[in-house]
Amino acid sequence: MENLILYGSILVALLAFAFAVWLYLWVKRQPCENQKIIKATGLIRAGARTFLRKEYGVLARFAGVAAVLIFVFLPKPVWQGEIIHNVWMVIAYIFGTLFSAIAGKIGLEVATIANGRSAEAAKKGIAPSFMAGFRGGAVMGMAVVGASLLGVTLVYLLTHDATTILGFSFGASSLALFAKAGGGIFTKTADISADLVGKVELGIPEDDPRNPAVIADNVGDNVGDVAGMGADLFDSNVAAMAAALVMGSALGGNNADMVFVFASLGLLASIIGVMTARIGKKGNPTKALNSSTYVTTAVFAVLTAVATYLLQFPWRIWGASIIGLTVGVIIGITTDYFTDDSKKPVHFVAHASKTGPAFTILSGISYGLLSVFPAMIGIGVAAVAAYKICEPLGGVEYALFGISMAAVGMLSIVGMIVSNDAYGPIVDNARGLAEMGDLGEEVLAITDELDSAGNTVKAVTKGFAIAAAGLTVIALLGAFMSEVNTAAAELGVAGIQNFDVMKPMVFFGLLVGAAVTAVFSAMLMLGVDRNAQRMVSEIHRQFKEIIGLKEGKEGVEPEYDKCIEIATDGALKELVPAGLMAIIATFVVGFIGGVQAIGGFLCGNIVSGLLFALFMSNSGGLWDNAKKFVESGHEGGKGSDAHKAAVVGDTVGDPFKDTAGPSINTQITVVSLVASLMSTLFLTLHLF
Amino acid sequence: MENLILYGSILVALLAFAFAVWLYLWVKRQPCENQKIIKATGLIRAGARTFLRKEYGVLARFAGVAAVLIFVFLPKPVWQGEIIHNVWMVIAYIFGTLFSAIAGKIGLEVATIANGRSAEAAKKGIAPSFMAGFRGGAVMGMAVVGASLLGVTLVYLLTHDATTILGFSFGASSLALFAKAGGGIFTKTADISADLVGKVELGIPEDDPRNPAVIADNVGDNVGDVAGMGADLFDSNVAAMAAALVMGSALGGNNADMVFVFASLGLLASIIGVMTARIGKKGNPTKALNSSTYVTTAVFAVLTAVATYLLQFPWRIWGASIIGLTVGVIIGITTDYFTDDSKKPVHFVAHASKTGPAFTILSGISYGLLSVFPAMIGIGVAAVAAYKICEPLGGVEYALFGISMAAVGMLSIVGMIVSNDAYGPIVDNARGLAEMGDLGEEVLAITDELDSAGNTVKAVTKGFAIAAAGLTVIALLGAFMSEVNTAAAELGVAGIQNFDVMKPMVFFGLLVGAAVTAVFSAMLMLGVDRNAQRMVSEIHRQFKEIIGLKEGKEGVEPEYDKCIEIATDGALKELVPAGLMAIIATFVVGFIGGVQAIGGFLCGNIVSGLLFALFMSNSGGLWDNAKKFVESGHEGGKGSDAHKAAVVGDTVGDPFKDTAGPSINTQITVVSLVASLMSTLFLTLHLF
Repeated sequence: MENLILYGSILVALLAFAFAVWLYLWVKRQPCENQKIIKATGLIRAGARTFLRKEYGVLARFAGVAAVLIFVFLPKPVWQGEIIHNVWMVIAYIFGTLFSAIAGKIGLEVATIANGRSAEAAKKGIAPSFMAGFRGGAVMGMAVVGASLLGVTLVYLLTHDATTILGFSFGASSLALFAKAGGGIFTKTADISADLVGKVELGIPEDDPRNPAVIADNVGDNVGDVAGMGADLFDSNVAAMAAALVMGSALGGNNADMVFVFASLGLLASIIGVMTARIGKKGNPTKALNSSTYVTTAVFAVLTAVATYLLQFPWRIWGASIIGLTVGVIIGITTDYFTDDSKKPVHFVAHASKTGPAFTILSGISYGLLSVFPAMIGIGVAAVAAYKICEPLGGVEYALFGISMAAVGMLSIVGMIVSNDAYGPIVDNARGLAEMGDLGEEVLAITDELDSAGNTVKAVTKGFAIAAAGLTVIALLGAFMSEVNTAAAELGVAGIQNFDVMKPMVFFGLLVGAAVTAVFSAMLMLGVDRNAQRMVSEIHRQFKEIIGLKEGKEGVEPEYDKCIEIATDGALKELVPAGLMAIIATFVVGFIGGVQAIGGFLCGNIVSGLLFALFMSNSGGLWDNAKKFVESGHEGGKGSDAHKAAVVGDTVGDPFKDTAGPSINTQITVVSLVASLMSTLFLTLHLF
Repeated sequence: MENLILYGSILVALLAFAFAVWLYLWVKRQPCENQKIIKATGLIRAGARTFLRKEYGVLARFAGVAAVLIFVFLPKPVWQGEIIHNVWMVIAYIFGTLFSAIAGKIGLEVATIANGRSAEAAKKGIAPSFMAGFRGGAVMGMAVVGASLLGVTLVYLLTHDATTILGFSFGASSLALFAKAGGGIFTKTADISADLVGKVELGIPEDDPRNPAVIADNVGDNVGDVAGMGADLFDSNVAAMAAALVMGSALGGNNADMVFVFASLGLLASIIGVMTARIGKKGNPTKALNSSTYVTTAVFAVLTAVATYLLQFPWRIWGASIIGLTVGVIIGITTDYFTDDSKKPVHFVAHASKTGPAFTILSGISYGLLSVFPAMIGIGVAAVAAYKICEPLGGVEYALFGISMAAVGMLSIVGMIVSNDAYGPIVDNARGLAEMGDLGEEVLAITDELDSAGNTVKAVTKGFAIAAAGLTVIALLGAFMSEVNTAAAELGVAGIQNFDVMKPMVFFGLLVGAAVTAVFSAMLMLGVDRNAQRMVSEIHRQFKEIIGLKEGKEGVEPEYDKCIEIATDGALKELVPAGLMAIIATFVVGFIGGVQAIGGFLCGNIVSGLLFALFMSNSGGLWDNAKKFVESGHEGGKGSDAHKAAVVGDTVGDPFKDTAGPSINTQITVVSLVASLMSTLFLTLHLF
C-alpha cells in the first residue's frame, strides 16, 4: 500500500510537469513581434541567465563544502555509523539543491518569455494579456510543486528514512538562501539605483531605455520575485513535508502515507485551480486570481476528505490540515487590510506624507507593527487547535504530528500561490516592455491594471507564505525534538521531554535566536545599501562617459551588462556573510549549551523571525501602495510634496519587503534544519 | 537582626533625602538674574506642573479603579482569604504610586530651577555650569532611589510579606506607564511640532521665543526625560527588589536581608559617586560623568564584599550581583559604539544621508538592528552565569534567586544613572535658555558642549536601563513561578515545574506576548503622530491669528499654554489605550490558557520587548548623533541635502528613542507584575 501511494505521488508530480509543458507551449504560441520588445526580453533573459549561472556557481562551491561536511558528520560521524547512511544523506542534500535549482531555472525561462507575450497581448485587450501572464507564472507554480513532491517521494522511496529527507530539505534551503536573499539584494539594488538616478536625479520615466540600470531592474523582478519566491516556497513546502514525515514515521502506521496523499491532492487541486482561472473582457484580474485560490482551497478540502474516508486516515488529522489551510487564507486576508489602497492604513500613510517623509516612515512602521498582531494570533491559534484536535489520538507525539499536518495543509495550495506570485513580476515586466516597445497609452493602462492586481495579490500571498513558514518551523521544532530523542535512544542517553524557558540555557538560546534574525535582516539591508551605492556610481559613470546617452541620441546605448554584473557580484558577496552568521550562531549555541540551548534558540528565532518578516513585508507593501495611491491623484498627486515623501517610504520599503522580510523565512528554515541534522552532535558535544 | 537591617535601610534612604536637600539648597544658592531666563523658567515650570497635575489626575482615576479591583481580588478574592491581606495590598499599591509620584515631583521642581542656574553659570565657565546641571540632576537621582528603598522597606517592615511588595511594585509601574509613555508622547509631540513649523517651514532657529511650541518643547524635556526616566528607573529598581524578595523570602534564611543590604549599599555608593563628580576649568564633562559612574561601581563592589563577609551572606550570591553590574556596564559601553559620533555607525549613516533620506532611514534601522546583538548576548550570559554560580547553593530556587540578585546588582548604581540621565535635559534646557536670554555665543558654546555630553551619556544609560529591565523581568518571571507555586500549595493543586515551549499553550502565549510589544510601541508612535498633527495646526493658527508674532514685534507673545495644553491632553488620551491593550491581553491570555500560557506570554514579551527597546533606542540615538555630526560640518554640513536627510532620520528617531523604545521597559514590567498578582486567579480560572 505504501509503495502504491509513493508511485501515485510520483505520477501526480509528473502530471504537474506535463501540465507545465502544456502551459509553456501555450505561452510560447502567443505572438511576439515587436522588435524592441524582442530585443529587450532577450537582454532580460540573458541577464537573468547570467545571474543564475553565477549564483549556481557560488552555490555549487558552498554545497560542495557542505556535502563534504555532511558526508563526514551526518547523520552520524562517518567513523561511528554506517557509511551508506552518510552517502545517502549527501545524495539527498545534492538532490535538494538540484531539484529546486531546476524548478527555478524553468520558471525563469518561461517568465522571461511570458513577459513580452503579455505586453503584446495587451494590444488585444486585458483578457489575453492576463492569460499570458498568469499561465507563464503557473509554469513556475507547477514546476516548484512538481519538483518538490517528486524529490521528496524519490528520496523516501529509495531510503525509507525520514531523516534523509531532512537532508533533501536542507539542500532546498541552501538554494533558497542564495536564491531568495541573493535575488532579493539583486532586485532591490537595481530597482533603487535605477529610480534614484533615473527618476529622481534626471527626471526620466521609469523603464526609460536610456537608463543603464533599466534591464538590471527588469532582470531583478525575475530573479528576485520569480526564482527567489519559487525557491522560498519550494523550501517551505519541502520542510513542511520533511517535518511531517519525521514525526509521522516515528509514529508508524499509515501516518507517513498521509503526508504524500495530502501533498499530492494539494497539487491536483492547484492544477484544477489554475485551469479555472479566467477573466472576462472587462474582467477584474484581482478577482480572477483570488477566486482561483478559493477554488483550489475548496477542491483540496473535498479531495482530502474523500481520501481520508477511503484510506481510513484519522479524521482529526484531516481536521488539523483544514485548520492550517483556513488560517492561512484568513491571515492572507488580514494582511491585505494593511496594504490595500482602499483601506485606512494606506490612506493614513498617504495623508501623513503631506507633513514630510519622516511621517511617512513613522506611520508606515507603526502600521507594519500593528499588522503582526492578527497573523501572530492566527499562527498561535492554528498551532493550538491542531495540537488539541490531534492530542486524543495518542498524546504529544500525535499532537505535534497534527501541527506538522496543519503546515502541510496550509502549504497544500502552494502551487496556486506560486502561480499567483510569479504572475506579478511577469506583468510588471510586461508594463516595462510596453513602455520600451512604444505600445501606446491604451496598452500601458491595461498593463498597469494587471500590475496593480499583481501587487494586491502579492500582499496576500506574502502573508500566506510567512504564516506557512511559521507553522512549518513550529513543526520543525517538533521534528528537532523527535530527532534528538531518536539519537538519544540509539546512544543510550537520556532524551528530552521539553524545552523549559526557566532553564537558563534555554533562555540564553531564546535571546540569541531572537537577536539572530534582527542581525540577519540588518546585514541584508546594509548589503543592498552598499551595493546600490556601487551601482549608482556606475550609472553616473555611463551617463558621463557615453556621449549622447543622456540626450537619447539614436543608436547610442548604455552598457546594460555592466549594471547586471555589479548587481550580481554584489548580491552574492553581501549575502554569504549573513547566511554564514546564522549558521555559525547555531553551531556556537549548540556546542555551548547543547540541545536545550538549541531548543530555545530555534524558538526565539521563530518568534522574532515571524515578527520581523511580517512587520517588514507589510510595512513595505503599505508604503508601495501608499505611493501608488498618491500617484493616482490623492493628497496632491504626482510631483507634490506628499509624493516625494511617499517615494522615500517606498524606497525604504523596497528592501524591507523584497530583501530582508521574505529572506527571514529561509533563514529560520535553514537554522531549524541545521539544528535537526546536527542533533546527534549537539547531544554529545557541548560545553555546559 | 532582620529588623536592624530594615531600620538601617530606612536610615540610608533618609540619608539620601538629606543629601538631596543639601544638593537642592546648593543649586538654589546659585545666581539667576537674567529677567528673560527667569521668565522662561517660570513658564517651563508652570507647564511642567500643568502636565504633572493632569497626569496625576488621570492616574488617580486609573489607580482608583485598580485599587478597587485589587481590594476585591488580590492577593485572593476577598470572599476567600483574609480581608486584611487585601487591605494591605491596596495600601501597598497606593504607596507605590505615591512614592514614585513624589520622587518625580521633586526631581521636576529642581530640574526646572537648575536649568536656569546652569545657563547663567555658563557665563563663568564650563565647571560651574556643569555642577549646576549635574547636582540638579542628582537631586532626582537621590529622590528616586531614596523613595524606592524607603517604600519597599516600609511595606516589608509592616507586612513582612513579599507578595505585598509586588503590589507596591505594581503601583510604581502604573505610575511609570503614565509618566514614561505619557511624558514620551508629550515631549516628542512638542519637539517634532516645534521643529517642523519653526525650523523647517519658517526657518527660525531652535528655541526661538516666537515659536508657540518652544516652551512646550522645553517642558517636554523635563516631563519626558526627567520625570519619565525617573519613574521608569524607580519602577525597575522596585521590581528588581520585589522579585528578589519574593524568591529570597520563599527560600528563608537571611536571603531577604541581602536584598535590603545590597540595595542600601548601592545607594551609599551612588552618594559617594555623586560627591566625586568634578570637572576642571577645561575639563571634559563626558569623562566627569562616566568616571563618577565607575567610582560608584567600584565602591559598590567593595562595600558589598565587606558586608558579605561580615554578615556571612553566600559569596556566590555576591558574585551574581557583581556579574549583573559588570554586564550592565559592558552593555552600556557597547551601546555607546552604535551611537557615538566618533565611531563607524554614525559616520556611515551621515554619509548615506548624502544619497537621500531613504538611505538615512535604511542604514539607521540596519545599525539599530545590529546593535541588539551584543546586548542580548550580554543579558543572556548574565542570566546563565548568575544561575550557574548560585545553583550549587541549593538548586533551581537559589539559581533563580541569583538571577534576581544580578538584577539588583545591575540596578545598585541606579542613583548614579538617574543623576546622569536627569543632567541631560537640564543642560539641554540650559542651552535653550541661554538662547532665549541672549547670553551670547561663548555661553552657547559651553552649553552646547554640556548638552552633547548629556547625549553621549544618555546613550550609555539607556542601554544600561534596558539591560537592567531585561534582567529584572527575567527575575520577575521567576517570581511569577514562585507565586504560582505558593498559590498552588495553598490551594492543594499541582504547581508548575516549567514553562515548556513544546506545550501549545506556552507557544501560543509566546507568540501573543511577542506581538504585544510591537503593537504597544506602534500605538504610542501613532499617538505621537496624531498629537503632533493637532499641535502643528495650533501653531499655524497662532502664526496666522496673532498679528506681529512672525515678525517678532516687541511685546507680542505666542500663547505658549495652548500648546502645552494640547500636548498634555493628547499624550494622556493616546497612552491609555496602549496601556490597557497590554493589560487586557494579559488577562485574555491568562483566562484562556492559564498560568502556562502566561509563562509563554511573559517570555515572548520579554524577548521581543528587549529586541524592540534596544533597536528603537539605539537607532534613535544614532540618527540624533548623525544629524549633529552633519551639522558640525561633515558631509556638506548645515543646510546641505545630507543635513535635510539627517533631519528626517532624527525626526523618525525621536519617538523611537524617547517614546516607544523606553516605554517598552515599563510595559514589560507592568505585564509581569499583573501576571504575578493574578497568579491565583489564572491558576483556578481558565478555559483550556
